[in-house]
Amino acid sequence: MNRLSLDELMLRADALIEAMPYISKFRGSRVVIKYGGAAMVDADLKAAVIEDLHLMQTVGILPVVVHGGGKEITQLLQQLGTETTFIDGQRVTNQAALDVAEMVLAGRINGEITAALNTRGARAVGISGKGGALLRARKLASASGGDLGYVGEIAEVRPRVIEVLTEGGFIPVVAPLGLGEDGQSYNINADVAAEAIAVALRADKLIFLSDIPGLMRDPRDPDSVIGTVHRTEVEELIASGVASGGMIPKLRSAAKALDACGKVHILDGRRRHSLLLELFTEKGIGTQIVP
Amino acid sequence: MNRLSLDELMLRADALIEAMPYISKFRGSRVVIKYGGAAMVDADLKAAVIEDLHLMQTVGILPVVVHGGGKEITQLLQQLGTETTFIDGQRVTNQAALDVAEMVLAGRINGEITAALNTRGARAVGISGKGGALLRARKLASASGGDLGYVGEIAEVRPRVIEVLTEGGFIPVVAPLGLGEDGQSYNINADVAAEAIAVALRADKLIFLSDIPGLMRDPRDPDSVIGTVHRTEVEELIASGVASGGMIPKLRSAAKALDACGKVHILDGRRRHSLLLELFTEKGIGTQIVP
Amino acid sequence: MNRLSLDELMLRADALIEAMPYISKFRGSRVVIKYGGAAMVDADLKAAVIEDLHLMQTVGILPVVVHGGGKEITQLLQQLGTETTFIDGQRVTNQAALDVAEMVLAGRINGEITAALNTRGARAVGISGKGGALLRARKLASASGGDLGYVGEIAEVRPRVIEVLTEGGFIPVVAPLGLGEDGQSYNINADVAAEAIAVALRADKLIFLSDIPGLMRDPRDPDSVIGTVHRTEVEELIASGVASGGMIPKLRSAAKALDACGKVHILDGRRRHSLLLELFTEKGIGTQIVP
Amino acid sequence: MNRLSLDELMLRADALIEAMPYISKFRGSRVVIKYGGAAMVDADLKAAVIEDLHLMQTVGILPVVVHGGGKEITQLLQQLGTETTFIDGQRVTNQAALDVAEMVLAGRINGEITAALNTRGARAVGISGKGGALLRARKLASASGGDLGYVGEIAEVRPRVIEVLTEGGFIPVVAPLGLGEDGQSYNINADVAAEAIAVALRADKLIFLSDIPGLMRDPRDPDSVIGTVHRTEVEELIASGVASGGMIPKLRSAAKALDACGKVHILDGRRRHSLLLELFTEKGIGTQIVP
Amino acid sequence: MNRLSLDELMLRADALIEAMPYISKFRGSRVVIKYGGAAMVDADLKAAVIEDLHLMQTVGILPVVVHGGGKEITQLLQQLGTETTFIDGQRVTNQAALDVAEMVLAGRINGEITAALNTRGARAVGISGKGGALLRARKLASASGGDLGYVGEIAEVRPRVIEVLTEGGFIPVVAPLGLGEDGQSYNINADVAAEAIAVALRADKLIFLSDIPGLMRDPRDPDSVIGTVHRTEVEELIASGVASGGMIPKLRSAAKALDACGKVHILDGRRRHSLLLELFTEKGIGTQIVP
Amino acid sequence: MNRLSLDELMLRADALIEAMPYISKFRGSRVVIKYGGAAMVDADLKAAVIEDLHLMQTVGILPVVVHGGGKEITQLLQQLGTETTFIDGQRVTNQAALDVAEMVLAGRINGEITAALNTRGARAVGISGKGGALLRARKLASASGGDLGYVGEIAEVRPRVIEVLTEGGFIPVVAPLGLGEDGQSYNINADVAAEAIAVALRADKLIFLSDIPGLMRDPRDPDSVIGTVHRTEVEELIASGVASGGMIPKLRSAAKALDACGKVHILDGRRRHSLLLELFTEKGIGTQIVP
Repeated sequence: MNRLSLDELMLRADALIEAMPYISKFRGSRVVIKYGGAAMVDADLKAAVIEDLHLMQTVGILPVVVHGGGKEITQLLQQLGTETTFIDGQRVTNQAALDVAEMVLAGRINGEITAALNTRGARAVGISGKGGALLRARKLASASGGDLGYVGEIAEVRPRVIEVLTEGGFIPVVAPLGLGEDGQSYNINADVAAEAIAVALRADKLIFLSDIPGLMRDPRDPDSVIGTVHRTEVEELIASGVASGGMIPKLRSAAKALDACGKVHILDGRRRHSLLLELFTEKGIGTQIVP
Repeated sequence: MNRLSLDELMLRADALIEAMPYISKFRGSRVVIKYGGAAMVDADLKAAVIEDLHLMQTVGILPVVVHGGGKEITQLLQQLGTETTFIDGQRVTNQAALDVAEMVLAGRINGEITAALNTRGARAVGISGKGGALLRARKLASASGGDLGYVGEIAEVRPRVIEVLTEGGFIPVVAPLGLGEDGQSYNINADVAAEAIAVALRADKLIFLSDIPGLMRDPRDPDSVIGTVHRTEVEELIASGVASGGMIPKLRSAAKALDACGKVHILDGRRRHSLLLELFTEKGIGTQIVP
Repeated sequence: MNRLSLDELMLRADALIEAMPYISKFRGSRVVIKYGGAAMVDADLKAAVIEDLHLMQTVGILPVVVHGGGKEITQLLQQLGTETTFIDGQRVTNQAALDVAEMVLAGRINGEITAALNTRGARAVGISGKGGALLRARKLASASGGDLGYVGEIAEVRPRVIEVLTEGGFIPVVAPLGLGEDGQSYNINADVAAEAIAVALRADKLIFLSDIPGLMRDPRDPDSVIGTVHRTEVEELIASGVASGGMIPKLRSAAKALDACGKVHILDGRRRHSLLLELFTEKGIGTQIVP
Repeated sequence: MNRLSLDELMLRADALIEAMPYISKFRGSRVVIKYGGAAMVDADLKAAVIEDLHLMQTVGILPVVVHGGGKEITQLLQQLGTETTFIDGQRVTNQAALDVAEMVLAGRINGEITAALNTRGARAVGISGKGGALLRARKLASASGGDLGYVGEIAEVRPRVIEVLTEGGFIPVVAPLGLGEDGQSYNINADVAAEAIAVALRADKLIFLSDIPGLMRDPRDPDSVIGTVHRTEVEELIASGVASGGMIPKLRSAAKALDACGKVHILDGRRRHSLLLELFTEKGIGTQIVP
Repeated sequence: MNRLSLDELMLRADALIEAMPYISKFRGSRVVIKYGGAAMVDADLKAAVIEDLHLMQTVGILPVVVHGGGKEITQLLQQLGTETTFIDGQRVTNQAALDVAEMVLAGRINGEITAALNTRGARAVGISGKGGALLRARKLASASGGDLGYVGEIAEVRPRVIEVLTEGGFIPVVAPLGLGEDGQSYNINADVAAEAIAVALRADKLIFLSDIPGLMRDPRDPDSVIGTVHRTEVEELIASGVASGGMIPKLRSAAKALDACGKVHILDGRRRHSLLLELFTEKGIGTQIVP
Repeated sequence: MNRLSLDELMLRADALIEAMPYISKFRGSRVVIKYGGAAMVDADLKAAVIEDLHLMQTVGILPVVVHGGGKEITQLLQQLGTETTFIDGQRVTNQAALDVAEMVLAGRINGEITAALNTRGARAVGISGKGGALLRARKLASASGGDLGYVGEIAEVRPRVIEVLTEGGFIPVVAPLGLGEDGQSYNINADVAAEAIAVALRADKLIFLSDIPGLMRDPRDPDSVIGTVHRTEVEELIASGVASGGMIPKLRSAAKALDACGKVHILDGRRRHSLLLELFTEKGIGTQIVP
């Protein structure tokens, strides 16, 4: 064995030694991950997320993945020539569009993530939010009172199926569909689904993997990410304009999730292994919202 | 309460009293049901199957449903204008066709059955055969050696996900998709998937719900159904021509399944509540293949 | 199979489907049944009660039977020429009479019910209230202060033996005898014993099988049975004279039992399968007293 | 504290220290005791047996008591004027006699022993052999082929009720009655019942408490008791005339019981605390039959 | 068997019968014993303590032994010529003295007690207070502020190792050493260690085996031992001068321990089997302090 | 965060990803480590071994440490002026020497390792081989028949205490002392003790940490280490002279241990983190002996 490889070995030893307290601390923790954006598109990033989830499972963390759908739904709708109408700028989901959404979410994307995890050596099971009546839903009213079709809001979470799968040693991979009382399916926003599941599970962490570095003091400067936001600071950050646009509902729902969750994280899904680095190294990544 | 209703009540009491020994006998039994054909199309029959599955769960049976796909895949393929080629009369499943099959099976049909069960009061979770690597698959070679595309045969069944869900109190509803070693998905024949799962679970019963009354001595006379076939009689029935056509592979695979399963049933899915009547009354329905 | 039998089959299917939610609801429920009157004398009614208890056990209900003694004690006392004295119209139970009561209750009747259940396929164990010190008793004082002999009131219920037997899969069949601190046996009223055991078990239901159709608005009209009595209505029904005679203590003790029990039922033991029909059909039978 | 009491204390300490290895050795052992003869009649001996059983339970032994009936049945038969007939010198048990036997065994004697144990602080539950179908019986044929009435032999032992009660912390006290397939009760010999239960439980010890000091070389000399008989010596002892009369079937059945039991003991029930002394001191009492 | 031995046997039977309720009462109790003084020096007394601990374990009590060190430390220090200095009359424990203390306590005395118990048939495991961080310690400040060296006070007790060993069937034998946050060892007073462990375990009894008969009204009269002291009497006994000298801190710490312990006993370790007699006979020994 | 730290982070991520399959594979494995030589003397190496053991525990491995004593015993013997005699070149262990060995092994060295592990965050409990009668020993006969004093060989291993501690979440740290039947202590060779414990535990791995790089083809060339030796090659390597001196008994006992252990490793304790690198990287270190 030459000197070089010995140095490398020592680096590896150090990495393991550094990760030790975190491995120990997070064993048995329930971590809900909203998976979407670039990390679900770019092949390299996808592979790294799968590896991170596998590592989490290997060291005894109980991850739950909630994924979005994104552009593939739109593509298939176009391919099928389904007409689209809008109310207040929101797309109306008629039955045909819902069928397409369900097929893409529960049929294609969910299957792809599940296959990747099982192929990599992790143990994962894909389900939709209708399985075990996980996400009981009802019709979401639009702001203006118009009919948005089969877009749902969550009426109740029945987390038993998630518990059964995690206790059985599997990573549940959840497509964000809801089940109405009358058996009607609803399309649910994936961020909302992830938060509701995390709350119902009393998860230790809720992590949003998205295409931003976190909450930034200066939106043009990625180095201005605010590492930690206390729940009480959220409204102040909104009032002062630091948090704006899409960040406002994200922070407010994070603050609300803290009633039941330990911590909420906004991580940059465009950085490889951001999940792993957040969990197992001293350097926090992105923004964490804490009680 | 008038006399009439009292008679009715006595009939109900008698039905329960008659069902009692079967309820007692089948508690905790694993019953794998291949669900397809008319019973998956006709609204009334669909509702009755859902009720039967719910009743089975209510009295402590552990059902596992494996469903087919049928015409809906063909419809969507046509709608999307996907071209179809054939080898030896078998449709070649290219990647586009596979995507469609997966979306229809795991996205639409699986979701519909799962939703119906949960809405009716049963507790069910839909998964695909890729979940938990339930169905490890490999490419199926055609008889002539031509390339059938992504049609798979089963390399291994990992029944853990089924066990976890049934022990957790859920009916697993399985879409017949397989996972190759390299992560590739494969379309699997639903009869084959049901049989393989029943064998891996060492199920007490494997039931095929199909559009025939059973094995008939005279194919034109539904009253000529043979009630019981002993494993040793199978080859004789084939040689004598009583069993012909599609019944031949069905009987042979049933005979093979008996290595691990208790019994195999071929039931007429076009008869309402055929599952329930088979399980809970003295009159057997259809054909049973026994060791 | 001819049309007729198919109709019958459908009736049976319907009975099972109708019973389903009740089977599901009552699984694991503890139901204490005071068994006495005609249902303990008439051979047909006896057989039907045994079938009903067996069905209850088969579908996962945990029944507990407390039986009375009735005329057989008097018969044996006469046969042995034991003299009987009275105080305030109540029979005095001297040691000889107590011995006879114990032999008939714990020796003959208890054994007969236990044998019938085990022969029918149920699993039952007969015990007396002295077993496991289930019914700790003390001497009951007569209203006038006279000495009633070995008639006891319940000082304490130790339900452990009932729990052990039900958890072990058996129906406990209890002869209403009590154990004094000094080891003396006491004869206990079976209604009182059933109520005390139901309260100690925090039973879901306490059912009195007796020779009346329930609480009737017009005692001469069996169709005037009041289906449901709310606890708060009990005193009003007594004050208004609707409840009179033996019904008064029955209703008051039922109201008291509701502190710990879910519901109390007064069923007509002269109707075949009244237990089964009460539990598993939509039509309630007799009178229920609810909180 | 004076010197004297200190000496006494040291004696007590020594007794405990001596008993220690036996307490340790027998924890969790199943010990079936046939209880009959003088020890069931004399008040002092009765009290001592109850204390011994309580001590056994206290230190973690799992005793099971099978009692006989003896003279009380004859007394009640006479009191009721029931006529008695004989075949081959054996009393014929007609239905009336059986009713009396059942009432005395399961109603009076069983209740008395159960009450004494529970009053003394032990935890005991009285059952008959019909409970839980413990003793499945069939009609016993007389040697000459005559009809002995409802005298039974054991067809099968279902020890589950004994296991449930002992695991639940109770001493089962068993009246030797059997249950025929058709629901008929049978009177069973108590020695035979004790042996069959011991075998079915794979008991560690089977102890017969009877009115003899053990197997004696010289029947007139109580000091000639043979301490240990090896299974292989049994036939020799019979052939040589050392064992004679009622001792012959006792030894043969003991030898047979050793297939499943650890040891069989014949103890003198007329000696106070013979159970306790046999179990917890170095000096064995009576005769033990060992493999 | 001659008459004499029969009398002896009856005495033994009586001792067991008398001990029964105590055996029953203390099963599963946690009893912490501070072991020191004459009972750790005299060969006969040592043997009797070992027997008593073995008996306790045999009948299901869970004893925990905390031992002192005493003269052997001083002897080895002298043998090694280690110099000793004093502050306020207390010996200063420098690193060399601490090494000696640790070797004697954890190496010699602990090993000797553990060996004696295991040789006698008990199951015991010797550990030091550093094992499993049982005794987290910090430097004890002297009254005058001088540096006493490595004498520690207890910062925290982590009783898990004791629980693991007792649940695993072992008697933990603890050498009173503590572990500082920085890994430094500390010598801990054995009385203090026993009390802290008893409190952390919420022990049922804490017993100090020492060289006094108990708290005496007249220190010159061993017969004036006060049997029971109520917690509220402690300060009064100190104020009135009945308790003086070393008894003052003993009583105060006993009173404090009662927050978590059931009872505290001061027993005369110079009396053979004082542990056994205290636990299993009606005559209490020494002084008990009760809530 | 600057680029550099990002690179470092990626290295860490890679180390964790590489370690993943090993973490997964070794979870729940029992690994017995003989700890001695330089790794027990040099402060840096000591710290690294402690870290490695902690990491092993953190990721779910169950390590058991058996340590030697070495020079510290000799030092204390000299300090105390104990005279030493020899037989066949082996030191005779008289009682005084044994006392010193026990104090140093169980008192000093064991305490030091235990303290270091608990201070570092691991959970460890130090015991001697006498605890729980782990190592039952008898006198070792010298080759010439001379009396070596209290040097023992292992008569029996009772691994229960090790199982209790590991299942309780602790690393057992074992001082190699044995317990004779008569209570006498014996000094046991640490290599022998480690092997015997590994065999009794049916350990997955037995690792000797010693001051050699492994088995070398050329003893002067550390790069000539033989990575893997198959059990069948052992005698050949000895016959050919490749294995010589102290390596001969080491290889033979390793081969013997393979009856019960998964693998035996000889690692260079002079290399930092050799345990960790062996377990968690693709590059094996030292020599492994495999079946």
